[in-house]
Amino acid sequence: MVRQARSEATRRKIIDSAVDLINEIGYPAAGLGDIIERAELTKGALYYHFDSKEALATAIIEEGSETVLSSFRQAGRSGSPAMENVIHGSFVVTDVLTVDRVARAGARLLRTFGSFNPAAKSTLQILVDELTEHIAKAIAEGDLRAGLDPGPTAAGIVAGMAGAELLSSALANGADLRSRFAKNWELLLPALVTDESLGYYREFLARQAVRPPTTP
Amino acid sequence: MVRQARSEATRRKIIDSAVDLINEIGYPAAGLGDIIERAELTKGALYYHFDSKEALATAIIEEGSETVLSSFRQAGRSGSPAMENVIHGSFVVTDVLTVDRVARAGARLLRTFGSFNPAAKSTLQILVDELTEHIAKAIAEGDLRAGLDPGPTAAGIVAGMAGAELLSSALANGADLRSRFAKNWELLLPALVTDESLGYYREFLARQAVRPPTTP
Repeated sequence: MVRQARSEATRRKIIDSAVDLINEIGYPAAGLGDIIERAELTKGALYYHFDSKEALATAIIEEGSETVLSSFRQAGRSGSPAMENVIHGSFVVTDVLTVDRVARAGARLLRTFGSFNPAAKSTLQILVDELTEHIAKAIAEGDLRAGLDPGPTAAGIVAGMAGAELLSSALANGADLRSRFAKNWELLLPALVTDESLGYYREFLARQAVRPPTTP
Repeated sequence: MVRQARSEATRRKIIDSAVDLINEIGYPAAGLGDIIERAELTKGALYYHFDSKEALATAIIEEGSETVLSSFRQAGRSGSPAMENVIHGSFVVTDVLTVDRVARAGARLLRTFGSFNPAAKSTLQILVDELTEHIAKAIAEGDLRAGLDPGPTAAGIVAGMAGAELLSSALANGADLRSRFAKNWELLLPALVTDESLGYYREFLARQAVRPPTTP
């Protein structure tokens, strides 16, 4: 058991060092040598846990995606309208990407790899699929316009969020992620929400946008 | 002159080999060794032209961005309404990303590097800035809703496009980029365009979405 705990601690140290380097200098520039040096470990210790740099990237994508997806799911309350859960959940995601460095590195790796890494690809697919269900529910609840097609609507929302993450990271070092998400929702709401629900959701969005970040 | 032409041909061969590998297996997996092998050149020839793998990435980002930006600019006709130029220009960008492999690799590198590469960062900034001007013009022309703020509106549109490029690349190997852009515009139009112009722009979009791709 002691050996297992030590092995797990080593694995953790490798992931944390890789995550820090990915957030500081980017994945391409973060060499395995730099990661070992930062973790104060040997090459052997690293290769015991990860076959390659990409295997390490996959572990980070999986852990980061799990954090993001589970916090998005937990943000939804069963009694609340689906569209409230979607908007609230999206802000919880910005909080997670801001405070959780594994999730932040995972988001960078998602857009670095895209189709070239199965974990990255399946995370994007899961995001679109789960949001499609929420959008369909919100249409059935009468909050969203009846003419909307849930799949493309969800894909458009995920695209806007993924693009906002890229722009915020590239142009503001991630500092304005929450306000970019808020402005994207402001832009989208009149296209999504029925005229009857628009006033309510504008107010809901305004309250969400100024709400202090939740600490997961 | 002969020597200069030969040197330029070598540089071209290196870039083209790197571009193909980036499109086939992704930037992280494309090692300098693989690039040299595909180009049938020596390490010395590569290092004569590029200091590092990132210097090569920068050259691809610069060339790809130049192609995308200049085709977006050329798509606009001075007599046309700004919003027509924006929509038409966005579809010309999807065409360029589909047929031009340097531009396609450049787009992948934009989202791989983000803030970590000055060329990637400045391309994203230029896209947002130029689109902001078009949006301001379209508001002044009365096609877009007067309450829109040009900067965040442009940032939201660029985010949606960048995210659509990622999703299309990750989930459909880029094959559905044009239809993703079309669906994003369909979603956004009612939020952007005034009630008076909405019918016209829906028709304009429908014609653009089925227009055969322009070959640059």
